[in-house]
Amino acid sequence: MQLLKERIQREGKVLPGNIIKVDGFLNHRVDIRLMEGIAKEFENLFDVKSITMVLTAEASGIALATICAQRYGVPMVFAKKAKSDNIEGGLYQSEIYSYTYKKKITQILSREWLTSHDRVLIIDDFMANGEAVRGLCDLVSQAGAELVGVGIAIEKGFQGGGDRLRGMGVNYHALAVIEHAEPGNITFRDEE
Amino acid sequence: MQLLKERIQREGKVLPGNIIKVDGFLNHRVDIRLMEGIAKEFENLFDVKSITMVLTAEASGIALATICAQRYGVPMVFAKKAKSDNIEGGLYQSEIYSYTYKKKITQILSREWLTSHDRVLIIDDFMANGEAVRGLCDLVSQAGAELVGVGIAIEKGFQGGGDRLRGMGVNYHALAVIEHAEPGNITFRDEE
Repeated sequence: MQLLKERIQREGKVLPGNIIKVDGFLNHRVDIRLMEGIAKEFENLFDVKSITMVLTAEASGIALATICAQRYGVPMVFAKKAKSDNIEGGLYQSEIYSYTYKKKITQILSREWLTSHDRVLIIDDFMANGEAVRGLCDLVSQAGAELVGVGIAIEKGFQGGGDRLRGMGVNYHALAVIEHAEPGNITFRDEE
Repeated sequence: MQLLKERIQREGKVLPGNIIKVDGFLNHRVDIRLMEGIAKEFENLFDVKSITMVLTAEASGIALATICAQRYGVPMVFAKKAKSDNIEGGLYQSEIYSYTYKKKITQILSREWLTSHDRVLIIDDFMANGEAVRGLCDLVSQAGAELVGVGIAIEKGFQGGGDRLRGMGVNYHALAVIEHAEPGNITFRDEE
């Protein structure tokens, strides 16, 4: 997606540790018009007419997933990080490793809001090692629901998460795959 | 807001510890059409034409804040819980106590995305003790920005957070103020 790549080139910053900071438009301050453009782009890549829900993980995926769910006319569900006492029993759980927080995290999702009848589009803002999305796929599988696809705004192509999903045959699309990043020089993988 | 109160009456569950569970439409599975209705309602209560941003706290406020920001044509910014290494220096910080997680949490917000020129509408899905919103107000104050108002979908009126803001003269509105909650019986405060 050309517009997204231009925003990354213009406003993205590369920090030590291969961190790519896009917090001016994606995951701290969110440009809603850009999210609308991304949601429209996913519409060309996934069979959104057939889905029953958009699923994401808290926190930064929620804004994009909300705009996608709005456009496709379905509810948005987000998996939570465990330890809140606001969720009673009847949960799906998946264990993931958060490279951001440098610890294991348990994703939880109420069995009430994901069942074997659901057709799920997973949406997230960012894909690096892919742990968050791996956990979400696991939740979908536990529910016996159908995974229609996985849509990501920005993938760090050099960290393997996206390629692992492609290798598994998941209907996976990222709109901007960063192949290489150093300060002042961000390059993208050629279009699929 | 009648529609919201009806949803709470019909789908809300009261759990031990005065927890009111509305996770089927507000903060786990999110009904986007309802969020649009709430955003429209806030438009009648706040001078949204004058704001430069919608501010919320991660995680569950993000969906509603996104739909509000979309409607008012401004960016949505969310304060993060500290400990991520994705945010470099130059932060506003506020300390709050999370009753959900039973520990102190530091909210952080990049100085890049909130300045003294901003006119801020704070939006959150839920108000109980009001710690999250107190922290957000503190961030706005640190920036020297102007607080236009605070809009909340559901307030637990008996936990004091909303009344404290009203007492401080903040332009505060909650669309459903729960006065009393026990299993099978949720009652609301009369309209302002």
